[in-house]
Amino acid sequence: MTHARLTPLAAALPSTVPFVGPEEMERQRGAPFTARLGANENGFGCSPRAVAAMQAASEEIWKYGDSSSHDLREALAAFWSCRPENIVVGQGIDGLLGDLVRLTVAPGDSIVTSLGGYPTFNYHVAGYGGTIHTVPYRDDHEDLPALIARAAEVDAKLVYFANPDNPMGNYLPGAKVAEALEALPEGTLLILDEAYAELAPEDAATPVAMDDPRVIRMRTFSKGYGMAGARVGYAIAEAPLIAAFDKVRNHFGMNRTAQIGALAALQDQDWLAHIRAEVASARERIGAIAAANGLNALPSATNFVAIDCGRDGAHARALVAAFAEEGIFIRMPGVAPLDRCIRISCGPAAELDRLEAVFPQVLARVATPA
Amino acid sequence: MTHARLTPLAAALPSTVPFVGPEEMERQRGAPFTARLGANENGFGCSPRAVAAMQAASEEIWKYGDSSSHDLREALAAFWSCRPENIVVGQGIDGLLGDLVRLTVAPGDSIVTSLGGYPTFNYHVAGYGGTIHTVPYRDDHEDLPALIARAAEVDAKLVYFANPDNPMGNYLPGAKVAEALEALPEGTLLILDEAYAELAPEDAATPVAMDDPRVIRMRTFSKGYGMAGARVGYAIAEAPLIAAFDKVRNHFGMNRTAQIGALAALQDQDWLAHIRAEVASARERIGAIAAANGLNALPSATNFVAIDCGRDGAHARALVAAFAEEGIFIRMPGVAPLDRCIRISCGPAAELDRLEAVFPQVLARVATPA
Repeated sequence: MTHARLTPLAAALPSTVPFVGPEEMERQRGAPFTARLGANENGFGCSPRAVAAMQAASEEIWKYGDSSSHDLREALAAFWSCRPENIVVGQGIDGLLGDLVRLTVAPGDSIVTSLGGYPTFNYHVAGYGGTIHTVPYRDDHEDLPALIARAAEVDAKLVYFANPDNPMGNYLPGAKVAEALEALPEGTLLILDEAYAELAPEDAATPVAMDDPRVIRMRTFSKGYGMAGARVGYAIAEAPLIAAFDKVRNHFGMNRTAQIGALAALQDQDWLAHIRAEVASARERIGAIAAANGLNALPSATNFVAIDCGRDGAHARALVAAFAEEGIFIRMPGVAPLDRCIRISCGPAAELDRLEAVFPQVLARVATPA
Repeated sequence: MTHARLTPLAAALPSTVPFVGPEEMERQRGAPFTARLGANENGFGCSPRAVAAMQAASEEIWKYGDSSSHDLREALAAFWSCRPENIVVGQGIDGLLGDLVRLTVAPGDSIVTSLGGYPTFNYHVAGYGGTIHTVPYRDDHEDLPALIARAAEVDAKLVYFANPDNPMGNYLPGAKVAEALEALPEGTLLILDEAYAELAPEDAATPVAMDDPRVIRMRTFSKGYGMAGARVGYAIAEAPLIAAFDKVRNHFGMNRTAQIGALAALQDQDWLAHIRAEVASARERIGAIAAANGLNALPSATNFVAIDCGRDGAHARALVAAFAEEGIFIRMPGVAPLDRCIRISCGPAAELDRLEAVFPQVLARVATPA
């Protein structure tokens, strides 16, 4: 016997990780990437006012952050016209998903998600012993009515639905989400992951109340606001559910400068408008690069574009590897039939220039292996 | 039925939180504190080089942090003469304790800690359904041999022991820890919380190997290194146990500037030496203030001093409240007989000046309530 005895659940968990980060890939290849277009980071950067606020706050890093993220929650409540009691701030959507799964999923409990949906949600569910039921994408879209129908069949605690979607990039108009919600069973909570919503058209917003007991919305400062490294996300839901997070969350877990930076970023909506324009332009450019190479870019309501490479997962994986050899970090969906695509994040013009320059030779090399 | 169905465990958890932060207390009292001496933060600040590194890194906050904290782990491994595989970086010791409890404590499993020991550890254990067994302090010291004896009786998965101790501030020489470890049962892991070890005498270090399977050490950049707001802690243990953290941790949960700042802080050992001197001097000053008011300060190997106020918990609580009214944030141990004390963090001279100035009137007011 050893001294550290893992629980049976922990002992049975795999050691695989949801994602390998770009720094790890750089160490493996022995050289830095020249284009960082794989993790849907916002290469246009975050608000200069937020940067300045974080720099100023660094002098006081000796202080713990505010355990209730009070100022940020107040500002978010005003922004969303809800109460602070409807909002919990956490360490990115990843952290909040972990807390939510912990609160709701006991071993054997079911959840429903899309086959090919966000792997980190599945990581949390498996980590708490939950059973994952999947529903295929329909025409490259997450199929919300089918997800909800499946939830009724398996008595799901949670249904995960990203709008806009990752990894395919499209969105379901919010009115359709509201319509589908009418069929949501009692006892099932819809996780509406809106990580990319700041970059989506206006009609992506779901017209149900912020405290509707059927839904928990997840939002982040990582994408539109360009603060992925800060780790600030928040959830919006009915007050009793939000209060339950206080039972399990790491109360003093928020980085203090991140709280201050996120508040400044929220207050700089002009910068967000600038980002929206940059992202829209980069999406068009990526679409044009795809077209110039005879490939079809899928419509995107996010800061990335899925490009249909017209063959299978092995082919797309070879492309991702070949781009990496050229110093370009991109990713791709994990399962068929989505994995015929590669996924390229919007980034500054110089990085898209490099993408454009190497695209033909990468395609040619993969088509005709040495 | 509602839509969010908590697990039976989560539903049964209390909504109480381990600590109320100073910002929350300031909002409740309607005025800021003028001395922040309650959370054992390091008011002397963190390394200016670390501040500069974080400020520079703020420009790239759009990038996620490195999910393996590679550079920091490499530097820590060199610092401790162990392998990077023996180190996991997490969101402060609080976050790492949560992950460790999750890995090892299933509902009904036992842990052992001191009666009056770190509440956040107990919070995690309760949160995963564990059973908490406590052993009283002996002469204001955590009683490691008794903790270990109790672990054998209750088949404990974990024993929690802080060295130096919080909230009393004393320490057990590391040679004594090693001696006590000889009796640790198979199947029991000792958590050696060394949050304050950077501020302790040299003989506090426990002379057992960093990969000894009996022990997991917890360290932080929050105290000696003065970076509480950054949320960077790490655990050191045998490689298989460290690898298990990868099964459950929030892989992309580390703030990027915090990783970079912690590395810079580690590389600035001159600043740590400066902090040690400041803390030693502040400890003496707090002791002198206590003595001038007829009270006895306990010996401290940390950046705080417990002052024996000679009466009971109600008296000490009244003192803490009276200091707060004077704008001075301090805390106190939570349970008898430790709660005859108040606990005052080391801080800059100006804050200790204010402490000194109000101490007599606070004592007098509490002795003779209006």
